[in-house]
Amino acid sequence: MSPKKIPDPVAKRLALYHRCVNTLLNQGKDTTSSKELGERLSLKASQIRKDLSYFGDFGKRGMGYNLKYLRESLEHILGISKPWNVGIVGAGNIGTALSNYQGLLKDGYKVVALFDRNPSKIGTFVGTQKIPIYSLNELCDKIKELSIEIGVIAVPANHAQSIADRLVECGIKGIVNFAPMKLYLKNVILEDVDISISFKSLTFKIWGSSHGKT
Amino acid sequence: MSPKKIPDPVAKRLALYHRCVNTLLNQGKDTTSSKELGERLSLKASQIRKDLSYFGDFGKRGMGYNLKYLRESLEHILGISKPWNVGIVGAGNIGTALSNYQGLLKDGYKVVALFDRNPSKIGTFVGTQKIPIYSLNELCDKIKELSIEIGVIAVPANHAQSIADRLVECGIKGIVNFAPMKLYLKNVILEDVDISISFKSLTFKIWGSSHGKT
Repeated sequence: MSPKKIPDPVAKRLALYHRCVNTLLNQGKDTTSSKELGERLSLKASQIRKDLSYFGDFGKRGMGYNLKYLRESLEHILGISKPWNVGIVGAGNIGTALSNYQGLLKDGYKVVALFDRNPSKIGTFVGTQKIPIYSLNELCDKIKELSIEIGVIAVPANHAQSIADRLVECGIKGIVNFAPMKLYLKNVILEDVDISISFKSLTFKIWGSSHGKT
Repeated sequence: MSPKKIPDPVAKRLALYHRCVNTLLNQGKDTTSSKELGERLSLKASQIRKDLSYFGDFGKRGMGYNLKYLRESLEHILGISKPWNVGIVGAGNIGTALSNYQGLLKDGYKVVALFDRNPSKIGTFVGTQKIPIYSLNELCDKIKELSIEIGVIAVPANHAQSIADRLVECGIKGIVNFAPMKLYLKNVILEDVDISISFKSLTFKIWGSSHGKT
């Protein structure tokens, strides 16, 4: 089955399994089971077995999963057995925070450039990794020169669509969008990160548990 | 039906509907349909009708939804017809970015305090809203004094669990966790925001579309 046909929530869960497998390996374990993964991730064991079965046979019945093999397989499936170069558009708070985010580098996502239109920022460097901030005019040139495959949109909502269109014109392969708006794009893979959605989902549950009707 | 029993993905979609309804109202429209919402959000109209039906009858058959009434209802359901006071633990890059994030304030989430253990940060203020940074020792006192209901965890992963435990001890109602690890908590509502998961979901799709087997 092609990963293109895998439902989006499965992709998210595969990433969760990868993180959990890493934790177990760091704790010195060799094998795990769908039951153990399920307990750690608050998921049903049957769900985990079903998700992993999309990609072949990882475990022997009753024997559990070999953690090293499972990690290697998940890294291949998730495309992180290779490093990815990332460019962030917008060197504001969110762009700066992301370029210092250790969780990304750890998984092979390397922020190699930021882009901004503010002349006072262009030519300066961000964080301990000293990531350069380039002018937005250099976007296409640097994407090619630095082999940037993933573009991150960290600009205000009213500029997000035009930046996204430019990233696509420059041949970017995928976009992670932090601007709180829906983008209309063709021929590129898009992932939205909407922080306020998580807050609303949280207050929905708090509100429901104190005011809910049954 | 109690909101507690509503599946998590529905909560996330309700937040998406709310954002879309706001956009339509800003464009001067009065009514919408499940078809229009579906097209804008890449969801099936039947899915939208089903989600909204959990909460009663919003539209007349063939007449569509009244946008103002739908917004008001969604805000009530999502618990954002009231403001929420937010405290952020960790005044690093992510904590600072969040306290300046306009998308939260717009929806009634007001960051009223940051907490940090770095003496050089304590007593200073962040952003245009001049949000104070307090010592972690003041966590419980300030949560009560400032009526903070939501705690945000923006500390390194190895401190996240102990901070979460302290927030629960201080009587917080809900936690939004930005640390890339699974937290074990009771008696509190938790929402995880894992940025690297979005990147992995993206590269899974890029990788799959270029290397996928069918």
